[in-house]
Amino acid sequence: MSDTNSSLPSIERLVEAFQRLPGIGPKSAQRLTYHLIRMKREESEELASAAIGIKDNLMTCKNCFNISEEKICGICRDENRDHTMICVVEEPLNVLAIERSRIYRGIFHVLYGVISPVHAIGPEDLKISELIERINHNDIKEIILATNPNLEGEATAAYIRDTVSETDKNIEISRLARGLPSGSDIEYVDDSTLVHALNSRSSIK
Amino acid sequence: MSDTNSSLPSIERLVEAFQRLPGIGPKSAQRLTYHLIRMKREESEELASAAIGIKDNLMTCKNCFNISEEKICGICRDENRDHTMICVVEEPLNVLAIERSRIYRGIFHVLYGVISPVHAIGPEDLKISELIERINHNDIKEIILATNPNLEGEATAAYIRDTVSETDKNIEISRLARGLPSGSDIEYVDDSTLVHALNSRSSIK
Repeated sequence: MSDTNSSLPSIERLVEAFQRLPGIGPKSAQRLTYHLIRMKREESEELASAAIGIKDNLMTCKNCFNISEEKICGICRDENRDHTMICVVEEPLNVLAIERSRIYRGIFHVLYGVISPVHAIGPEDLKISELIERINHNDIKEIILATNPNLEGEATAAYIRDTVSETDKNIEISRLARGLPSGSDIEYVDDSTLVHALNSRSSIK
Repeated sequence: MSDTNSSLPSIERLVEAFQRLPGIGPKSAQRLTYHLIRMKREESEELASAAIGIKDNLMTCKNCFNISEEKICGICRDENRDHTMICVVEEPLNVLAIERSRIYRGIFHVLYGVISPVHAIGPEDLKISELIERINHNDIKEIILATNPNLEGEATAAYIRDTVSETDKNIEISRLARGLPSGSDIEYVDDSTLVHALNSRSSIK
């Protein structure tokens, strides 16, 4: 076969690099690559330099392990937030989602994953001992376990609940409510969600 | 509001750069950015350098305007291909799609767009005069107009057909067949496709 576009090394190389990103298949990678070919040089250089910058400027917060540009992140540094309330999440992206809701004013703790025997991830691979240390050395009144509402998220929440209970501190432990998502249609909601929505029904007057 | 993740300059910057790419919305851009944060440095550097490399190493072929790493692309250089047959496409990506089918053995001509009065794109903005020049200076027997089967693609094909006819050369001009896509379900096929499939029906024995 002659060297058609698809076998040009510089194209192949970028297609492969894009394909390594989550949610980008071979066709999207190709479309992105061809878009870049036609982009202005400044724009593609900006993308490249932003991709490098993210490695050079970021670290994880020493308290909560959220992504930060300083040793202690902006949320942990913020004195207007409630430092007695820790919301425990799986990933830094979850912090972002909760922050977007603008309703939570406590601080966070990022686990970096969930307990998953299938993937050989145990409690020691997550930031759980660091969470217990925070609880032992600070005045914490409530822990909100905001792991995802699936099997692994539930198992991880249960494990943390048990471990926190063992500290003998008087800490309230809660889990995010489960029920119908806003704007959903009952007809299309899965059974498990409906069971939770029914069980946790609240009275209206 | 305190400086949460979303307002970290290096994160914002990469999210914005990703969002400028086609098909990547705010949430995907954020997911890609957070993935990059956790990627190995070598991997993100590879993406960055591939994005730069695509600008440094590529040009358009002097004959067919396809993307190339040399002045004349591999397809135009290939002596085993039929140089009397030109397949006219809208974009370099279309060359790739047709090459993938492995059934076409002629050469190409890339227009870089379609005639679109709405977007103020006229024939002079496309590589149409260059196509006519190729026809005038080479022994061309057939032109396949492989613009997309929509209004603008049809109008562009009609314009090129008329312009090529004016050259007074004896050139066969064809258009890709329209009909049911392989694996489709007649129930879900749109009316326009069905009309074409019926009109272009072929007898079976």
